[in-house]
Order: sequence, then structure tokens, then C-alpha cells
Amino acid sequence: MTKETNTYNKIAGQDTGRILAISDGVFGVALTLLVLEIRVPFMDSIRSEQDLIQAFLGLKSKFLVYFLAFMTTGIFWVGHSSQYKYIEGSDRNLNWINLLFLLSVSMLPFTTAFLGDYTHFKFPIAVYWCNLLLMGAMLYINWAYACRRHFVDENIKALVDLPLRRRIIIAQSLYLIGALLCFISPFLSIAFIILVQMNYAFAFLSQRKKSSRRAIHDNME
Amino acid sequence: MTKETNTYNKIAGQDTGRILAISDGVFGVALTLLVLEIRVPFMDSIRSEQDLIQAFLGLKSKFLVYFLAFMTTGIFWVGHSSQYKYIEGSDRNLNWINLLFLLSVSMLPFTTAFLGDYTHFKFPIAVYWCNLLLMGAMLYINWAYACRRHFVDENIKALVDLPLRRRIIIAQSLYLIGALLCFISPFLSIAFIILVQMNYAFAFLSQRKKSSRRAIHDNME
Amino acid sequence: MTKETNTYNKIAGQDTGRILAISDGVFGVALTLLVLEIRVPFMDSIRSEQDLIQAFLGLKSKFLVYFLAFMTTGIFWVGHSSQYKYIEGSDRNLNWINLLFLLSVSMLPFTTAFLGDYTHFKFPIAVYWCNLLLMGAMLYINWAYACRRHFVDENIKALVDLPLRRRIIIAQSLYLIGALLCFISPFLSIAFIILVQMNYAFAFLSQRKKSSRRAIHDNME
Amino acid sequence: MTKETNTYNKIAGQDTGRILAISDGVFGVALTLLVLEIRVPFMDSIRSEQDLIQAFLGLKSKFLVYFLAFMTTGIFWVGHSSQYKYIEGSDRNLNWINLLFLLSVSMLPFTTAFLGDYTHFKFPIAVYWCNLLLMGAMLYINWAYACRRHFVDENIKALVDLPLRRRIIIAQSLYLIGALLCFISPFLSIAFIILVQMNYAFAFLSQRKKSSRRAIHDNME
Repeated sequence: MTKETNTYNKIAGQDTGRILAISDGVFGVALTLLVLEIRVPFMDSIRSEQDLIQAFLGLKSKFLVYFLAFMTTGIFWVGHSSQYKYIEGSDRNLNWINLLFLLSVSMLPFTTAFLGDYTHFKFPIAVYWCNLLLMGAMLYINWAYACRRHFVDENIKALVDLPLRRRIIIAQSLYLIGALLCFISPFLSIAFIILVQMNYAFAFLSQRKKSSRRAIHDNME
Repeated sequence: MTKETNTYNKIAGQDTGRILAISDGVFGVALTLLVLEIRVPFMDSIRSEQDLIQAFLGLKSKFLVYFLAFMTTGIFWVGHSSQYKYIEGSDRNLNWINLLFLLSVSMLPFTTAFLGDYTHFKFPIAVYWCNLLLMGAMLYINWAYACRRHFVDENIKALVDLPLRRRIIIAQSLYLIGALLCFISPFLSIAFIILVQMNYAFAFLSQRKKSSRRAIHDNME
Repeated sequence: MTKETNTYNKIAGQDTGRILAISDGVFGVALTLLVLEIRVPFMDSIRSEQDLIQAFLGLKSKFLVYFLAFMTTGIFWVGHSSQYKYIEGSDRNLNWINLLFLLSVSMLPFTTAFLGDYTHFKFPIAVYWCNLLLMGAMLYINWAYACRRHFVDENIKALVDLPLRRRIIIAQSLYLIGALLCFISPFLSIAFIILVQMNYAFAFLSQRKKSSRRAIHDNME
Repeated sequence: MTKETNTYNKIAGQDTGRILAISDGVFGVALTLLVLEIRVPFMDSIRSEQDLIQAFLGLKSKFLVYFLAFMTTGIFWVGHSSQYKYIEGSDRNLNWINLLFLLSVSMLPFTTAFLGDYTHFKFPIAVYWCNLLLMGAMLYINWAYACRRHFVDENIKALVDLPLRRRIIIAQSLYLIGALLCFISPFLSIAFIILVQMNYAFAFLSQRKKSSRRAIHDNME
């Protein structure tokens, strides 16, 4: 390589190190901040072990919301990891697409808390669904952009492009169905979305004995 | 290596970089957030140096709780480091097992604060113990899964598998004994658990002159 | 290389790893903490879907402020990334210049919230502008210092020095114009600054078809 | 290297990657959390631009405390970086020594806020000084332990050992003098400590023209 080409490459090329660092920072903080919403019940009204258990059980919707937000954040972190495993370069635009994805991630604690406080209304489901849609859309744009700018090896792209896109579209279709169920009942809607999330998160419990070939296939998606 | 094999490996293989980054993010935030529970005493009632010292001493249970939570988080961070020193690959399932471990880590500030506010009750000890159990269980599953999927070199596994598993089981047994002591006295229970934690954290004070061979052995556990 | 030279280099040289790690930590936390300012509306006064939508819309200035702060933090993160892509070494002084840059980044949540709460006053615009000026100034000093101490390859410096400096000066000139507009109307001033930020953040929407040569040029700036 | 030696080294050896990651996480969060102590002044009482400026100026002691805590955290981050630039290995004990150092770092937001709220008392200065002492002591122990366990190259140790130790001892002596000044006047005490911190942080302003040889020497300290 001539010295000139070397200089040229150094200026044009950029690895994904900074993108991964800022993303894991935002994800790490988001995952940990969620618990701050759960406050220890106040002391004065509590006199017996029974009172305390009662007060603790009163937090159960807070715990459910916490768990849901943690799972959702986790699902999108795994999705983000799957993409950046194959993305080998970046530019200013990819930086910004990723930042907008992180914007939607960092809003999740708010939209989930809003959902948790008003489980009997339709509007918070619409807000929560918009957040999920924005996360999915930015993740899709992220991958599409990285492919167009050739930040993904062509051989790998041929193998993983379709599964990666399909995964986002299927998940988003399920979220849309979940959101629409609110016209029947908000509770049904939330229950459906939670089930979809559980399916992504706990897939490993049902896949214990699958062959190594299938494992690779799962990893790609 | 043929080009095809190379592509295949790139898709199937995945290093542990992202897992370590998100984990250190969550641990780092958890360790730092703990201090937010300690509030500077309010100004109006304080008129003399004596008042201030009194107000400060009133925070002593908050400091104790902070210290306990920091130690516990530290112990599990060290345990996590010990495992990932030997784990050389990952897949989607390991991502999720690790995320569930982090879920239990991020709940620790809540369960410890709950324990600190109600030291004279049995129920918070049960909650705190459940948290310790969940952390231990996920760490155990994490290691077991990594071994089964051959993410650990066989030679190394032969040497470290038993000590790593034994360490978790011994610690969890001690926590169980500690939790059960609450039927005699909640204070005794908390004191016992703190002593166990101190033992793990301050081992270095008593091991100063041990031989280098023993040091390696300790490192493995 | 003799052993002595090797020792000498190890002591004198220092890579930028720690600087990047602490910077991405601060940026990651700053980006995520911003959302904490948006609180879920309180339950008691809300009886119907209509009430809830009303309460949600009441948060719109909070969302705008959140969005503005996220964009601004993002712009400076991208600017920081652009510089450290070329900076290959560091010393104690660069550590401190970078820390003072991070100080200005970490104040942004406060100055933006101050701006959002008092949109009809001139003073918060002055405070916000001071913050933007400080960030720009530290970024400029950072680059100038790195160049003077030869932490940037000379061939690369010849190509990127001017665009990097020009970018900061143009952005700061626009911010100054924006700030001065407050003497006509605070709203006009805020709107102008938001438009400038949008221009930097969403450049990628209008640049889709540009040639790869131009892309490199943009990356440099 | 035989296969056996290789396995042996893998088990015994451990790099400092995780220690740096958790440390930069804690430092990054601590630096950013500090600003949360500064709250935007409340709206109701503010009617004119004059009122707002007045309310803002009322925050000046909060800003001073923020600045002081940021500088102190920065000084110890730079000190930590200086050491780990030369430390090339780690073990379980070093993990714990570093965690206890981080414990003292994470307490700094509290002790500084305590100092800022009660500037006219002696006791908060004692508390703050204890925190500085703990940070310095852990940093000293960290380096001493790393040297004893041969995690530092002998050639490098010969050159940097003395300056690194001397730097901590000089800084701690100055802090002690500062703390003792509180018996004359708490304000004098705080002013002295701030001056000492400024001296470490802004050294770069006065060192611009020093020779490259001296720069290396400074870097070592």
C-alpha cells in the first residue's frame, strides 16, 4: 500500500468502536435507571410484617413495568448486537442514524412508566407502540444504510440480509397486532405485547437441544 | 482457511466484547447510583456543629446499606469477571442469560434499600435473599451454558470448572444460612450476611504472603 | 528498537483509550439522564382518555427540550469522534482539556432545562449560548493542542485540519447569530438554534445520492 | 511455549481490561450525576428577567460545589490513568483494591454536596478530607500492590515508582494542611483546597512551552 492510499483510507474509513461504546453506555444506563422508578414503600404507615408485605405487593405493577421495560431494552440491544456483528465500518450518517435509535431507546423508561400508570386507557398503548415502531424503524434504516454503503461484507450480506430484515418486520407486525387489540381491551393488548417479548427473550429455554447448524441460523436472525 | 469457511465462522462466531461492555455499563451505573440514596441532611433544623454531627450520625444506617450494596455488587462483578476471563465466545442465548443476570444486579439497589429501611422485619430479608439467589443462579447457568456450548477451552475447563461452580454453591449456602437466621433475629441474619460479604471482599488483607501457586488457585475460584 | 528506547516510549507515549472510554461514559449517561426530566403526569386529576391526552400534550415543551438537548449532545459527540479518529496519542494536558470539554457536556442537561422552563426570557438563552460556546471552545482547543503536540499524523493533518477548525467556527458563528436574535424575540432565537442543530443532525437525509468522494469530504469536517 | 504453559498462563494471567471498563463506567457516571444536584429555579416566584437572574445567581454555591467535585473526580481519574498506563496485569486482590477506590470515588458527590451546604462548619471539611484521604490511600495501595505482584515492568518501575508515590504523598499533605486550616476559618480551608485542585487541573495552562523531555517527566508523575 502506498503512503498516499494509507492516508486516504485513514480519513475515509472509520470503525464502529465509538458507535458501540456510546450505544452500550446508553443501554447500560437505561437498563439500570429503570429500577429508580420503584420506590421503597414509606415507613410511617407500616407497623407489622403483614403491613409490609401488603405495601410490597402494592408495588407489583411497578415491578411488571420494570420487567417489561428491561426485556424490551434487552431485545433491542440483542438486535443491535446482531447487526453490528456484521457492520465493519461507519461514517457520519451512520453515527446519526444510530444516535436517533438511541434516542428512541432512552425514551423507553418514560413510555413504559406511562403505560404502567394508566393500564386501563388506550392512549398510553398508542404512545408505547410508537416508541417500539421508532426503535424498529431506526434499526431497519441502520441496517439498510450500512448495506448500501458497503459496510457489510458481500458474502455475509447474502446470508444474513434477509433474516435480519425479516426479524424486524415480523416483530413489528406482532407489535402492531398487539396495539390494535386495545380496541377490544387494553389489558389484552398489554398481555399480547408481553407474550411477544417473552418469546424473544426466553427462546433459549426451548432451544436447548437444537443442532449446532440451527443455532447458527438463530444467531443470524 | 477457505473464503467460505471464513464467512461461515464470521456468522456463527461472536466474541464476548458486547456482553462485557453492557455488563460493565450496568455494574458501573449500579455502583454509582447507590450513593443517591444518601441525602444531605436538611438545613433548617441545624444551628450548631453539634446538630450537624448528630444529623450526620443519623445517616449511619444509610451508609451501612450503601456499603453492603457496594460490596455485594462488587462480589458479583468479580464473579462475573472470573467467568468471562475463560469464556471466549457467545451466542444469542448467552446474551439473554447475561441480561437476566444484569436484571438481578440492577434490582439490588432497591432490595438493599428495602432491607435498610426495615431492619427489624423478616420479609425484607427474604426479598434480599431472593435477589442474591437469582444473581447466583444466573451466574451458575451462565457458566454451565458456556461450558456446554464449548465457549470455554477444554484444558482450561478441566482446571477451573469445579472451583467456579463450588464457589457459587458455597456462597449461596452461606446466604441461605444467613437468611434462615432471621427466624432467630433479623439483626443476626443481616450481620451474618455482612460478615460473609466482608470475607469475600477483604480476603486480600489476609492473603498477603501466600505463595504464587496459591494465588493462582484463588484466582480460579 | 533497543530495550531502552522501548521503555522510554512506554513512559512517554499514551494512547487515547482511556479518554475515549470516559468520554463515551459521560456522553452515554448525559444522553440517557435527559429523559428523567419528563415525568409521567399525576394520576388523581385524570378520569378520561381525553384528560390523559390533554395531560400528555402538556408535556410537549418538555419533549422539545429533551429532543434539543439530545441533538446538541449528539452533535458534539460526533464532533468529538471526528477529532479522535485522527488523534493517536495523548498526555496529561490533553486528558484535562478533554475533561473540561466533558464538564461543559455534563452541564447541558441543566442549561437546556433552564431554557425550556423560561422560553419567554432572554437570560436563559445567554446561559445556553455560553454552554455551547464553552463546548465549541474546548473542542477547538482540544484539536489545536493535539496538533501542536504532534498527536496527529502530518499527512492527515494537512487534509483535515482546515475543515475541522472551519466546522467549529461556522457552527459557533451560527449559534452567536441565534443568541443575538433574542433581542428581537426569544422564540425566534430558540427556533433559529433548533434549525441549525437539525441541519447538522439530519444532513444524512439530503445526502443520500452524493458520490463517495464527497462522503469522504463530509466525514472529514 | 508448550500447550501446558499456555493453559497455565491463561488461568493465572489477567489483563486490566475489566478494571478499566468498570472504573471508567463509575467515573463517567459520577462526573455526570454531579449536575443533578443543580435544580432549575422554581417558576412561580419569577416574573421578570431581573427575578430570573437573581434566582440563577442564588445557585452560585451549587455551581461552585459542582465544579469542585468535577475537578476532584478528574484529578483522581488522571491519577488512576497514570497508574494503569504501566500496570499490565491484575488478580482478584487488585480487583478489590480498585473497587474500594471506586467506592471512595462514588462517595464524592455526597461529601462535596455536604460541604457545599454547610460551608460555615468544620465537620463537613473533616468528612470531605476523609474522603480525599481514602481516595489517595487506595490509589497508593493500588500501586504498591501492583508493584509487589510484578504487574509493572521492572525497567518502567525504576523510572516511575518514585514520582507516582511522591505525587500522592505531596497532594495528600496539601489536603491535610487545607483541612487543618479549618481551625482558623472554614472558608480559608475550602479556598486552600480549591487552589490545590486548580493547580493540578490547570497545570497545562502554564506548561505550554516546556521541552518534550520535561513533558515526559510530568506525564510520569
